[in-house]
Amino acid sequence: MAEPLRLGVAGLGTVGMSVVRMLRGHADALAAQLGRSVQVVAVSAREKGRDRGLPLDGVSWHADPVALAGGDGIDVFVELIGGATGVARESVRAALSAGKAVVTANKALLAAEGVALARLAERHDGQLAFEAAVGGGIPIIKTLREALAGNRLSRLYGILNGTCNFILTRMEEGEPYGAALQEAQRLGYAEADPSFDVDGLDTAHKLAILTSVAFGTEIARDAVFVEGISGVEPEDLVAAEELGYRIKLLGVAQRTDSGIEQRVHPAMVPRDCDIARVAGVTNAVAVEGNFIGSLMLSGPGAGGDATASAVVGDIIDLARGVKVPPLGRPAASLEPYRQARMQTHEGGYYVRLKVRDRPGAFAAIARRMADAGISLDSIVQRNRPFGSAPRHETGLAQPVTIVTHATTEQAVRGALKTIEAEGEIFGKPRMIRIEAL
Amino acid sequence: MAEPLRLGVAGLGTVGMSVVRMLRGHADALAAQLGRSVQVVAVSAREKGRDRGLPLDGVSWHADPVALAGGDGIDVFVELIGGATGVARESVRAALSAGKAVVTANKALLAAEGVALARLAERHDGQLAFEAAVGGGIPIIKTLREALAGNRLSRLYGILNGTCNFILTRMEEGEPYGAALQEAQRLGYAEADPSFDVDGLDTAHKLAILTSVAFGTEIARDAVFVEGISGVEPEDLVAAEELGYRIKLLGVAQRTDSGIEQRVHPAMVPRDCDIARVAGVTNAVAVEGNFIGSLMLSGPGAGGDATASAVVGDIIDLARGVKVPPLGRPAASLEPYRQARMQTHEGGYYVRLKVRDRPGAFAAIARRMADAGISLDSIVQRNRPFGSAPRHETGLAQPVTIVTHATTEQAVRGALKTIEAEGEIFGKPRMIRIEAL
Repeated sequence: MAEPLRLGVAGLGTVGMSVVRMLRGHADALAAQLGRSVQVVAVSAREKGRDRGLPLDGVSWHADPVALAGGDGIDVFVELIGGATGVARESVRAALSAGKAVVTANKALLAAEGVALARLAERHDGQLAFEAAVGGGIPIIKTLREALAGNRLSRLYGILNGTCNFILTRMEEGEPYGAALQEAQRLGYAEADPSFDVDGLDTAHKLAILTSVAFGTEIARDAVFVEGISGVEPEDLVAAEELGYRIKLLGVAQRTDSGIEQRVHPAMVPRDCDIARVAGVTNAVAVEGNFIGSLMLSGPGAGGDATASAVVGDIIDLARGVKVPPLGRPAASLEPYRQARMQTHEGGYYVRLKVRDRPGAFAAIARRMADAGISLDSIVQRNRPFGSAPRHETGLAQPVTIVTHATTEQAVRGALKTIEAEGEIFGKPRMIRIEAL
Repeated sequence: MAEPLRLGVAGLGTVGMSVVRMLRGHADALAAQLGRSVQVVAVSAREKGRDRGLPLDGVSWHADPVALAGGDGIDVFVELIGGATGVARESVRAALSAGKAVVTANKALLAAEGVALARLAERHDGQLAFEAAVGGGIPIIKTLREALAGNRLSRLYGILNGTCNFILTRMEEGEPYGAALQEAQRLGYAEADPSFDVDGLDTAHKLAILTSVAFGTEIARDAVFVEGISGVEPEDLVAAEELGYRIKLLGVAQRTDSGIEQRVHPAMVPRDCDIARVAGVTNAVAVEGNFIGSLMLSGPGAGGDATASAVVGDIIDLARGVKVPPLGRPAASLEPYRQARMQTHEGGYYVRLKVRDRPGAFAAIARRMADAGISLDSIVQRNRPFGSAPRHETGLAQPVTIVTHATTEQAVRGALKTIEAEGEIFGKPRMIRIEAL
């Protein structure tokens, strides 16, 4: 039997403790499978005394994760602290600089400087594995980097944030946004400050990582167009249902003539497609390529155990001596990211307006859309306001729902700006992109 | 740049030619990604002169795949001939005996002697990769063997044969079995002799391979309980619809107290579950484990390009120097397969009988089920025979549909045997297992 693989685990929260439990619980099976044992020999966490439900006898304790990461006693540094800065970043850099392998679930760090970290790993003959950073237990990184590596991929899209999908699922069932968010918080799916999730930033970080691995480009976190779910209102979900759609917070990356489009926003997806049926905290990612056609993976996008499954998968690769470049190819051969401008995005649009109830308003709006070269699939003026907005509040507003044929973002934004400026509507127009799947 | 990886491809049918096209079309991208080129240097196929739509200039031609496989000029032997015997088997053995890497899509060969081949590969420091053997382009082997390797898996199930799923999907839309099969044949989904697909053997081979990789046991192809789809009748699909189910040909492997159950049969699955929605020739596999929870992969289960995607994925692993035991662990550490007897299978059952229209028949049947300790969820006597069996043909038969609560295969079979012997029914009872998902 070969030498044991010695792990140092930094961060003993839910995921960290699940990793320790998983490795211990399956120690014999893993040793038989791998021909060597995998041992947690050192840990680092903030509170030494805290009861974590598992004895950590015989495991050396380190107050400083950076010292643990760069020290001699370990082969693999498992970073489960989180965050793009501070000790998480410093400890990962220390481990890679010391030529060690790093396994991390840290999407924020990867999105911010994954390419630099991959270079650091290559320079020191270390390794960097991060399956757990995207999609929880779903092996999407391995699938893109290895299984589909021979394909030229054209598009990937997914539900990458379980919190948002939970909230949207509850809203579909009739709950307003605030109540759905509170329920997510009560169940531990959403943080006290939920903005990182609901504003779409978490999805954007994950998408930026996937884009790099899928398309062979440098990570471009700040080039992701991001729109969160807090503007989605119950009437949008009702309208989506009537139109044959569901609303999902999607992360989408796709090749276009002008570059790679990366966007995160609520999208209307056909009710019968696979991604529309993904409910609650489940995640799913679909990938399209020239030989594979279309492939979809779905499973638990978060949670200690599912995330630990991905972390341990990476550890097993390391125990087997598997060496694959972190981002699927040598960092030096990643192409620069060429950003497609969001203004050039093409697709159908759903638009909801509160139109002043006066002669000609409806016609004026239709005319402005036509002026912008936008062809309409439907324009519906509803005589009765939707449930959640009683008439006495909206005054003389008539809700109008417009669905366009394929057009450009630029055309829709331009038309809505003109309509708003002309004073025919109350408040801001609401626009949701329709995703052709 | 490292040495090129030299491939010999045996079998230039649809998949073989897709592999050649994929490697050529992506040659530059692959070289950049892998730091070495991947070249098809030799081929073997039956008819040299045939126009395959691609020039094979500069590639050496071998009439004998076995000589090609064991010869000096190649690093990787890609076997796409198919079949468990003959030159496919001999050439794979020759390549492994010569210490080469083998990539194959040959499920029949793997199911028949995968463990012996894995041993042969290990003995000569060769390698054996077979992602394309199961699920076409879906990376289920890699997922089980690598990504989920730290889990203790409890169950896997899937739709592993696109032909059967296509036929069942068409039958749901109202076509009788014969017409659906003919359509599958016309579209090239089913062979002239469709028995290997429709009798469930293809699914059984794939399931036996998956079981080994998932549970770490030896491959036990002959221990798979197999029942095909040719007995499924339109009235079963109508009844399924009414009961809230769909009928799918599933391959299921699961741990039980008495061993591992492997079975292939038409199953009623709840209409709203993910697997129920898999339509047409698409395949899907779901895996359940103690840390991952549940994960599902779906995509193209067959076709030249999708299968080539999996073959090339394996080739890329080899080009990167990735070494993983073929079945996920050293062949010597695979556990013997301990078979759970089908008689002990537990679940709900759907039973359809044609009962003689005479006093007491209905009661006699209910009594026999009760005698066998079977608790009924519903028993429905239909006054009007189902569409496809006009009354004048069935004489005085009354169709009766029974749905049981969870019981054992043994109990149901016993009760039906008694009922049949007592002469209260016409013909054979029809039984379809209900899968709890």
